[in-house]
Amino acid sequence: MEVEQFFEDYEVGASRRTLGRTITEADIVFHAGHSGDFFPHHMDAEFCRGQPFGQRIAHGTMTFAIGIGLTATQINPRAMTYGYERLRFPNPVFAGDTIRTTVTIGRKVDDPKRPGFGQVVEICETVNQHGKTVMYCEHILLVQERGSP
Amino acid sequence: MEVEQFFEDYEVGASRRTLGRTITEADIVFHAGHSGDFFPHHMDAEFCRGQPFGQRIAHGTMTFAIGIGLTATQINPRAMTYGYERLRFPNPVFAGDTIRTTVTIGRKVDDPKRPGFGQVVEICETVNQHGKTVMYCEHILLVQERGSP
Amino acid sequence: MEVEQFFEDYEVGASRRTLGRTITEADIVFHAGHSGDFFPHHMDAEFCRGQPFGQRIAHGTMTFAIGIGLTATQINPRAMTYGYERLRFPNPVFAGDTIRTTVTIGRKVDDPKRPGFGQVVEICETVNQHGKTVMYCEHILLVQERGSP
Amino acid sequence: MEVEQFFEDYEVGASRRTLGRTITEADIVFHAGHSGDFFPHHMDAEFCRGQPFGQRIAHGTMTFAIGIGLTATQINPRAMTYGYERLRFPNPVFAGDTIRTTVTIGRKVDDPKRPGFGQVVEICETVNQHGKTVMYCEHILLVQERGSP
Amino acid sequence: MEVEQFFEDYEVGASRRTLGRTITEADIVFHAGHSGDFFPHHMDAEFCRGQPFGQRIAHGTMTFAIGIGLTATQINPRAMTYGYERLRFPNPVFAGDTIRTTVTIGRKVDDPKRPGFGQVVEICETVNQHGKTVMYCEHILLVQERGSP
Amino acid sequence: MEVEQFFEDYEVGASRRTLGRTITEADIVFHAGHSGDFFPHHMDAEFCRGQPFGQRIAHGTMTFAIGIGLTATQINPRAMTYGYERLRFPNPVFAGDTIRTTVTIGRKVDDPKRPGFGQVVEICETVNQHGKTVMYCEHILLVQERGSP
Repeated sequence: MEVEQFFEDYEVGASRRTLGRTITEADIVFHAGHSGDFFPHHMDAEFCRGQPFGQRIAHGTMTFAIGIGLTATQINPRAMTYGYERLRFPNPVFAGDTIRTTVTIGRKVDDPKRPGFGQVVEICETVNQHGKTVMYCEHILLVQERGSP
Repeated sequence: MEVEQFFEDYEVGASRRTLGRTITEADIVFHAGHSGDFFPHHMDAEFCRGQPFGQRIAHGTMTFAIGIGLTATQINPRAMTYGYERLRFPNPVFAGDTIRTTVTIGRKVDDPKRPGFGQVVEICETVNQHGKTVMYCEHILLVQERGSP
Repeated sequence: MEVEQFFEDYEVGASRRTLGRTITEADIVFHAGHSGDFFPHHMDAEFCRGQPFGQRIAHGTMTFAIGIGLTATQINPRAMTYGYERLRFPNPVFAGDTIRTTVTIGRKVDDPKRPGFGQVVEICETVNQHGKTVMYCEHILLVQERGSP
Repeated sequence: MEVEQFFEDYEVGASRRTLGRTITEADIVFHAGHSGDFFPHHMDAEFCRGQPFGQRIAHGTMTFAIGIGLTATQINPRAMTYGYERLRFPNPVFAGDTIRTTVTIGRKVDDPKRPGFGQVVEICETVNQHGKTVMYCEHILLVQERGSP
Repeated sequence: MEVEQFFEDYEVGASRRTLGRTITEADIVFHAGHSGDFFPHHMDAEFCRGQPFGQRIAHGTMTFAIGIGLTATQINPRAMTYGYERLRFPNPVFAGDTIRTTVTIGRKVDDPKRPGFGQVVEICETVNQHGKTVMYCEHILLVQERGSP
Repeated sequence: MEVEQFFEDYEVGASRRTLGRTITEADIVFHAGHSGDFFPHHMDAEFCRGQPFGQRIAHGTMTFAIGIGLTATQINPRAMTYGYERLRFPNPVFAGDTIRTTVTIGRKVDDPKRPGFGQVVEICETVNQHGKTVMYCEHILLVQERGSP
């Protein structure tokens, strides 16, 4: 769905929560094949039995891709991704976990190098079914200012 | 391949370069289905004709997943991912582009909160076949110090 | 396998039964990514616990695609699909269910608008391992008449 | 996005149009593997050269799954799928085509067998980039009436 | 389709030819992810430009899996795979090639160690659209003898 | 990783062992779709209950593709695959099994037909978590001799 929002329209503190998605063993297998990362932490159940978590864990890159993918329901034609900061994975994701992401407008910053644009920082926090944070990052958007050419 | 390295073993400035990988239309379709992000920038060739790049572009989350996945050839049992900083996508990836990643040890930092561990910052830079940077990030590792219990 | 059959060769009441196939969680995850339908009824195990079926259910479009796909073992060069009628999903498909399809020639109808062709209606019924119908539809074929140019 | 709508809330003639999606060769290969239908019309470019369309065509079951999948952006907790009628594929889909679906409320019908529910018929029409219809069907929803228990 | 054949029923020289299948770039990407083999001969178009074939080539393991998979249309409940001999890949498979397999009964051998069974050797030859052999192997079946317990 | 080795550099008896990988139900479903082999031994849990193994088994072509894929960590620019001999599957692979492959240099043979090249035979043995062999084959490499033009 397209939702047009200029820099001025973003409200610090505004928040939206995505649908949930259950991460499956199939997702982990997919992601290994997609990314080329077949490390035993993700792919070798026998190895994992001897590790602290006792089982295979999702790739961080997958938790990021799906955690952010869950938010991809609103297209703002006035915004584009500048980058991400402080990407963290405080807790592991296991097959069978159900995750969802909350996006909160964290702060708005002028962008002196890009006249007509400002930076909007979205705080993205992905939690599992126990309410534990499995992914945290700050998504930096460049957003057009109203009235800019 | 397992390559055991303690905090002391990392040398600032040391660098390795991965194999190359050609990103395909199939990868973009996969990633949409895997992440759930079907935004027209990635999926709608007609829409993209009217956009600045003129064609579909890879998802940032995919460039990250594959760019980092390319580096997954050496397992260090003494290191674990703490997070990523300054993730940027300075240029787009198109179907047909070939990318590879260079990993350089950027700096080493004490980690006062975690005795026995230090932080190693790997600078990850993914470039396309024209030498243009398509992904940049700083991968922060927690690495055990030699002689720590 | 090619099996040439003209309109006259179809016998009302003739029937064939396909091989069985176990539907897996991986199939449901695939289908979400393939179709772009990530509704929580298919993807969110936590949400589903509070729903009547208590667990994730297969997409109707998947039950249709696989139920019909199971029949794709005989190619008749004299027939083409005109469409489907009365597509129904009387019972849900869960991961772990094994389904198979029975195709019965239901009726034959002249096609006044297309000289040289007749309509053959295949009744397609997909059942699970408990004999419950999970998909029903009527597949309408246009089939060349013998001796038509 | 959840959009609660009772039977009374549907307005005949109301219409929404989905995003577009470019169908790729990868989608056709996926769908063959997902459905098990490897008929040469979809999979054998050499065979197709001698056929009327001159090239591989998408499976009807895929055009249906993706055409309907494109509409899966609004969840109505008061509605459930009853079935589909008059599913047709008037024109083929080729790799490279971009499709989108228009959903129009076609009619509303009482459902005497199910007190408290009515039937809403959504006309789903999927068109390609030339405006040609590639899929048509009538999606029958059972929708709760306002004030039903 | 089930076709019951005892050892005595196999006729040396009998032959069947499968449908054709066009190998796509998507298949090569899939196979890399499925097998974990991301060697640049299959995945790096830039690297391949400097190689004898000038382009990416299919994995041998994929040509084998698909070449043999094409033959999987007849199930003989009296036979099981013992192994394969002389697996060769005389010519490369490129994205866009169309392959099909011919299976010929090459010879029948007693199996002194397994009373009641004989060995049937199927010569499997996969050719591309130019008639060049891209895969050759001898598939050894253990087949029950008629009248064995 | 590139490891340049001439014919003379291979030492009979030298051996390396790959990482392990847990085979999942998703892998079996993938492989069916990739290869086109949907035989009930791999795909129909109900059918398999009545068979000797009592459950679905991996395709031999998959055990080969993944068993060999696990070894794809060292590229030798002086070697190319000539073929495989004596491919066997002594024990089945089930979903949940973890496999790894040992590659041992079995023998070195002159190749009279190809001056400047010799044949190196790698014995590839894939075992499951119980130490049982699930795949055996002899991989024949053509390797350049040192000093050949």
